[in-house]
Amino acid sequence: MTADLLDAFALLAEYGALADAGDYSEWLGLFGQRCSYYVIPKENDDRGLPAALIFCDSRAMLEDRILSLRAANKYNIHVDRHLIGLPRIVSSTPDSLSVEAPFAIYQSEQEGDTRLFAAGLYRDRLERTSGGLKISEKKIVLDSFAIPSLLATPL
Amino acid sequence: MTADLLDAFALLAEYGALADAGDYSEWLGLFGQRCSYYVIPKENDDRGLPAALIFCDSRAMLEDRILSLRAANKYNIHVDRHLIGLPRIVSSTPDSLSVEAPFAIYQSEQEGDTRLFAAGLYRDRLERTSGGLKISEKKIVLDSFAIPSLLATPL
Amino acid sequence: MTADLLDAFALLAEYGALADAGDYSEWLGLFGQRCSYYVIPKENDDRGLPAALIFCDSRAMLEDRILSLRAANKYNIHVDRHLIGLPRIVSSTPDSLSVEAPFAIYQSEQEGDTRLFAAGLYRDRLERTSGGLKISEKKIVLDSFAIPSLLATPL
Repeated sequence: MTADLLDAFALLAEYGALADAGDYSEWLGLFGQRCSYYVIPKENDDRGLPAALIFCDSRAMLEDRILSLRAANKYNIHVDRHLIGLPRIVSSTPDSLSVEAPFAIYQSEQEGDTRLFAAGLYRDRLERTSGGLKISEKKIVLDSFAIPSLLATPL
Repeated sequence: MTADLLDAFALLAEYGALADAGDYSEWLGLFGQRCSYYVIPKENDDRGLPAALIFCDSRAMLEDRILSLRAANKYNIHVDRHLIGLPRIVSSTPDSLSVEAPFAIYQSEQEGDTRLFAAGLYRDRLERTSGGLKISEKKIVLDSFAIPSLLATPL
Repeated sequence: MTADLLDAFALLAEYGALADAGDYSEWLGLFGQRCSYYVIPKENDDRGLPAALIFCDSRAMLEDRILSLRAANKYNIHVDRHLIGLPRIVSSTPDSLSVEAPFAIYQSEQEGDTRLFAAGLYRDRLERTSGGLKISEKKIVLDSFAIPSLLATPL
């Protein structure tokens, strides 16, 4: 359990750091070959409603999203900063872990303002592989359905 | 010391997660049979002044507060999100640990706004029991005496 | 690696806690005899530009800064609260560690307002000594060049 907690801790730390640094190739490497990535408002998640703001249910979709982020999209230029709180292990099997961690993301605009962009809860399923833990499902539950600007960069 | 740090880490992660999820029965289970829960502004704590915003010096008082929260109180409906920073062990005995951790709590209103609700420092005494670490004293030191709305849900 | 991660975790927790408590002598004790402390906007750090907001490249300079903070400076009285996110080990040698951790600092003014003061990334080099890990270089990368008030107390 202790080793699991530290491994989950290290994976989450990498997740936030690589996203903030814009190292999207390495960031994608944290995901398993079969993976999903959802962004869903808490009120939908609480009611079991599937409607999501972002819904990538395959690795190809997630890769495509990152590709478009780098090559095609135009959006407000900003710096992201992920603050990820203490994670907890919700359940553990020989094959996988369910982990939750609260997060806050700050964005700094080119004019110099830094503001809270989003707060919520990561609800992750991590699979044990020969290469260590990989993300097989990332469900990002947003506390608010309203986010103040474009959802361009990864949460 | 390392085991203590990880155990305190895990307890704090549970504390914030259960509060945010509204799992108040499980949240109460993190406290020992004899426990206290205080919310006190930093300026009072610094001066040794006992005046607190919330003062529960028995488990019965804390249970009563949670009961009233669930059954009786009316307050603004919102989502809490606890971000708890890295904890440190202040002192350790064979029976107990003193632990501190900084925190920020965000609240999201039904209209969609997320804002900082409170920031401060947890100053906890944790007792070692056969069931693991339990909270025997939770002192929540608020950086500001002013909080922007009702203190309904647990800090 | 696990021991390193926990040691870095503990050092960062002390760093933030001692700064917030104003225990600057103990806070200085976290640094090695040869150390540096820089505060630099992210846009300069990204481009390799050395211009910093604060530039202390010796322990004497850092001590002098703390001395002036305590004895001479006049500035807005406030409470700082460091929230340091999950750290990651970037590299490790027998002599030192490179560690990164995201942070957010909140300031509470005497009038009762608490606001985000700064967000960014710690890029630390920690040296292994007989007294445990010590900070040999602290580079504080601010996400925004604009900070809303005086940079008086340590980031």
